[in-house]
Amino acid sequence: MKSNIWVEENLEDYVAFRFKVEKTLFSGVSDFQAVDIVETKGHGRMLLNDGLVMLTERDEFIYHDMITHVPLFAHKNPKRVLVIGGGDGGTAREVLRHKSVEKCVMVEIDKMVCDACKEFIPQTAKPMLEDDTRFELVIDDGLKYVEQACKSGEKFDVVLVDSTDPIGPAQPLFGHKFYEDIKGCLNDGGIIVSQGESPFYMQEMQNKLLSILSDTFKIVKLYNFHNMGYPGGLWSFTYASDSVHPLDNFDEKRVIDSGIKFEYYNEEIHRSAFTQPNFIKNRIAPFIKG
Amino acid sequence: MKSNIWVEENLEDYVAFRFKVEKTLFSGVSDFQAVDIVETKGHGRMLLNDGLVMLTERDEFIYHDMITHVPLFAHKNPKRVLVIGGGDGGTAREVLRHKSVEKCVMVEIDKMVCDACKEFIPQTAKPMLEDDTRFELVIDDGLKYVEQACKSGEKFDVVLVDSTDPIGPAQPLFGHKFYEDIKGCLNDGGIIVSQGESPFYMQEMQNKLLSILSDTFKIVKLYNFHNMGYPGGLWSFTYASDSVHPLDNFDEKRVIDSGIKFEYYNEEIHRSAFTQPNFIKNRIAPFIKG
Repeated sequence: MKSNIWVEENLEDYVAFRFKVEKTLFSGVSDFQAVDIVETKGHGRMLLNDGLVMLTERDEFIYHDMITHVPLFAHKNPKRVLVIGGGDGGTAREVLRHKSVEKCVMVEIDKMVCDACKEFIPQTAKPMLEDDTRFELVIDDGLKYVEQACKSGEKFDVVLVDSTDPIGPAQPLFGHKFYEDIKGCLNDGGIIVSQGESPFYMQEMQNKLLSILSDTFKIVKLYNFHNMGYPGGLWSFTYASDSVHPLDNFDEKRVIDSGIKFEYYNEEIHRSAFTQPNFIKNRIAPFIKG
Repeated sequence: MKSNIWVEENLEDYVAFRFKVEKTLFSGVSDFQAVDIVETKGHGRMLLNDGLVMLTERDEFIYHDMITHVPLFAHKNPKRVLVIGGGDGGTAREVLRHKSVEKCVMVEIDKMVCDACKEFIPQTAKPMLEDDTRFELVIDDGLKYVEQACKSGEKFDVVLVDSTDPIGPAQPLFGHKFYEDIKGCLNDGGIIVSQGESPFYMQEMQNKLLSILSDTFKIVKLYNFHNMGYPGGLWSFTYASDSVHPLDNFDEKRVIDSGIKFEYYNEEIHRSAFTQPNFIKNRIAPFIKG
């Protein structure tokens, strides 16, 4: 007898992809979403929110390297970093590898995601399991947190929006107000990077996000990476800042001197991730600035 | 009543992906393989060989741009081009957009693939449907063709190995003899590009191909592209030559001056496709030359 359980994610009822499941480790329903962690056959452990693949142990290094190291090396000296979402911990884990970072605040709305990852995906939950005094976990609505931080004068050098798609709890994270508030709590030379959806399958959603950023910031770019657990495998992050271009003053030496052993990121990938094939380049041209 | 027919490709029984099928247009079994063409819901028409997705109308421009334009712009003046496989016609279609090309020979082992594409996927089968006297279709075993061409002194500037995976009819195309024979029928300054498998899921197979190329040619590189119909979406081509580096003397102006309207390729993508993330870069380092 062989088990034949698969987890399947379906995109608009015409493309779907499946991972074979060996065991379900956690299944819960929080105030915000369904949270599942499964042991897959070929991809290690996998986190799903509302049935959508968030990460797998086998390839999470790609997403977490690219959301983190691109802005943290574009910035000259990032000291204070805010992660919105990212409850699995992988983004904060990469942020804390930067010696310049003095404070990393991670604001996750759903405690169940944090707790489940702490128990079943220690690979990403590392910051929540260790005693790095630079790390602070806040269980709160990222939107509210940013609004309050903005009012109270709290500032950050880099903000990373490590959110799910704009359905479910992450919906308000794809709005003008949120990005204006973030702008308000950025230090001079601040940078914001957000999960930017699929440049192939989700062009409208990507355009909408880029359009909001374009209304709010002087420099707006899109860069790509791979995620084997996202539809099509080709995915983007958006990059925005009022003063820091991601490439013009990029200091390759700082990457090498950091001594960080990256599994995906390097100084060449930093540059090449921003080059876009024509079908993307032409579509996003109205939103790209600086 | 809604139909619920899907075509599914499975990778080693742990990852699979599915496309919704609206209609089967062609199903045949040739001397070499099963050949199917289906109308999908979201990806246009799709060609499958032995149940593996070869292309979809919606994203074939990516594969065909990248197998063709990278070597044809790395080469200073490509006149004679040989396509091994590529029975759908898409690679030859892109080759013939280059005004410098005087002859494009396409050697496909399976006439059924050509005939089925001529009838149901004219988008790629264009060269087989039009009267471009520069184009010649040869129904033959690519291995034999290259051996004979080599003996008879026939020469090419660029050889494109547009093959399926090394299972089924394409197996001998992943051997030393084949690449030595190709080397024998390359003009000075000749370039060979081959379908290079997945750098994520098929690392052994990719290493094997790179190792063969490394034994045979002085310059060996790997470059990546996306294919929504291949497992994980991240895929590679191998690049080999005895004298032409793909980037060192790359003439961006020639790309712009060509006047070709690319949907994917451009001069920036030409360069960035060769940059590799660390997990690939470190693995392939022993095989990369020049």
